[in-house]
Amino acid sequence: MPPAKPSHSAAVDRAFRGRHALITGGLGFIGSNLARRLVRAGAKVTVVDSLIPEYGGNLRNLAGLERHVQVNVSDVRDRHSLPVFVRGKDYLFNLAGQTSHMDSMVDPETDLEINARAQLSILEACRRHAPGIRVVFASTRQLYGRPDFLPVTEEHPLRPVDVNGINKLAGEQYHLLYHHVHGIRSTVLRLTNTIGPRMRIKDARQTFLGVWIRALLEDRPLEVWGGEQLRDFTYVDDCVDALLRAGAAESAAGEVFNLGGPPPVSLRELAAMLVEVNGGGRFEIRAFPAERRKIDIGGFHADWGKIERVLGWRPRTSLRVALRRTLAYYRRERAHYL
Amino acid sequence: MPPAKPSHSAAVDRAFRGRHALITGGLGFIGSNLARRLVRAGAKVTVVDSLIPEYGGNLRNLAGLERHVQVNVSDVRDRHSLPVFVRGKDYLFNLAGQTSHMDSMVDPETDLEINARAQLSILEACRRHAPGIRVVFASTRQLYGRPDFLPVTEEHPLRPVDVNGINKLAGEQYHLLYHHVHGIRSTVLRLTNTIGPRMRIKDARQTFLGVWIRALLEDRPLEVWGGEQLRDFTYVDDCVDALLRAGAAESAAGEVFNLGGPPPVSLRELAAMLVEVNGGGRFEIRAFPAERRKIDIGGFHADWGKIERVLGWRPRTSLRVALRRTLAYYRRERAHYL
Repeated sequence: MPPAKPSHSAAVDRAFRGRHALITGGLGFIGSNLARRLVRAGAKVTVVDSLIPEYGGNLRNLAGLERHVQVNVSDVRDRHSLPVFVRGKDYLFNLAGQTSHMDSMVDPETDLEINARAQLSILEACRRHAPGIRVVFASTRQLYGRPDFLPVTEEHPLRPVDVNGINKLAGEQYHLLYHHVHGIRSTVLRLTNTIGPRMRIKDARQTFLGVWIRALLEDRPLEVWGGEQLRDFTYVDDCVDALLRAGAAESAAGEVFNLGGPPPVSLRELAAMLVEVNGGGRFEIRAFPAERRKIDIGGFHADWGKIERVLGWRPRTSLRVALRRTLAYYRRERAHYL
Repeated sequence: MPPAKPSHSAAVDRAFRGRHALITGGLGFIGSNLARRLVRAGAKVTVVDSLIPEYGGNLRNLAGLERHVQVNVSDVRDRHSLPVFVRGKDYLFNLAGQTSHMDSMVDPETDLEINARAQLSILEACRRHAPGIRVVFASTRQLYGRPDFLPVTEEHPLRPVDVNGINKLAGEQYHLLYHHVHGIRSTVLRLTNTIGPRMRIKDARQTFLGVWIRALLEDRPLEVWGGEQLRDFTYVDDCVDALLRAGAAESAAGEVFNLGGPPPVSLRELAAMLVEVNGGGRFEIRAFPAERRKIDIGGFHADWGKIERVLGWRPRTSLRVALRRTLAYYRRERAHYL
């Protein structure tokens, strides 16, 4: 067993003891951190992940937990496999997704298949085979598009600026619909940039911070596009805490919550802080590439007041600590991620 | 050639003379009325329609125009056929869709395939094979869900209450995205209830007014569910006028417009008017079936001020005249629609 670790939300953890949880995308960044926490809480964890090389799944993410987690390598687009996974589960943390905005523009139909069509199949499987399951769906701030106002609340108009955002919107709306119409109790969390150990750093497909860290590890300068855009960051442990709180609270069913983080920073400030925490490196400010600019959302940070009010969640990890822990992880583990 | 008919928008018609127009869903209710008008305007019209028996396509809808319209029976889900259709076209009126709210709940994946996935394929075909094409997409007021305020403007939050609404939302958002990012000039019209000759009257899959008219034709009482809900209706000739104005105006590219109609009426008032115009028949008020209530949107009518301001469109046909013409058509043509 991995060592016990003091937790801010031991009460939440207790809700999962002995319960059966399914995590789609469970070999990915957030999914694997969630699986680790659920195992510590005493849950019985099943993980489904496609391990598509361009996505976030990595067997290393569950290293040491092989005997505590049921791992099934398969794709959520394979609708025939889904009933087996949902049957008998108490919780579904539905995190599988295509996350690259650029990839969604180049190959929109694959993005649709994963982020929209497969979500329907998952919910249909729940309706037929696990109607009592409790679902938490990982949505994204990308749904808001270019903000009309900051910080962005859950009431902000939904105006996605790329194919990924449109399909994720459909995915979360299906969850809310299956809750309201079919009684499949679902909560939607709209994630902002999540960072921490086990994220993809090979490229920018999951987060631009991945390639920044890779550059530092390889002694290359970071490339900062633009630099003035504000962004907020959730440390992955805080994100996991939100997923668990959402799943444990009946009052969260049918609701949509933003996640957020400590006060937002500009990309230039973030790069400077990362170099400082790393104790070395440098960054270069570059003009935004044209095909990126078309789907960029400008500055963004989320108002997370609703999840604080309803579920008592708050980001507990400062950005500096988040960056320090993340860098420490990749200095140790880089061979498994590059 | 069908006889020329005086038109409120002869100038709009002129814009289409000699131009190549593609209509998906062109054997359906609105598509076939549009095809007739485009032929009168001197356009070269190609129609694609799947003729799926549960949908709106009906060969009778283009009776008499067989030599003036190129009809291709095929399904927009067949992505390999699409490049052939869009190549060389000046206009695409993209009307093919699954329209039944109930069917979308029973078979959500088929609804997604047609209303979302195929729309992406159509737009991808335009991007690769007809980047200069002008697109008008038929969206729906269903995207708004249960209104927060009446009449509903284009700024009303988008909160679809059924699978059909979610997928149509994705479909229209793809159009706007391909306009903004890829320069495929597209206009979205959010239609409310459209009525008139050539609509489906076999069942309620296209509009409840269809089964009402069928009941009158068959001397059965109309069933009115609830009765107090407000609804607005666009006569199909007015809808066609809006489609043409949207396609002809450069200023409409990238824009979303509501359609609407004469002042809204309650379903009870509508039933009474229909019986009166018919010169006979009766209606019964029934409680709302439970599975319908879950996805019903309550009262609705649209604010069509924006399309009036930008494109000079207004509903020209009173509800009474619309009902009279519709009934006259089905008394004559019932054998082809029942």
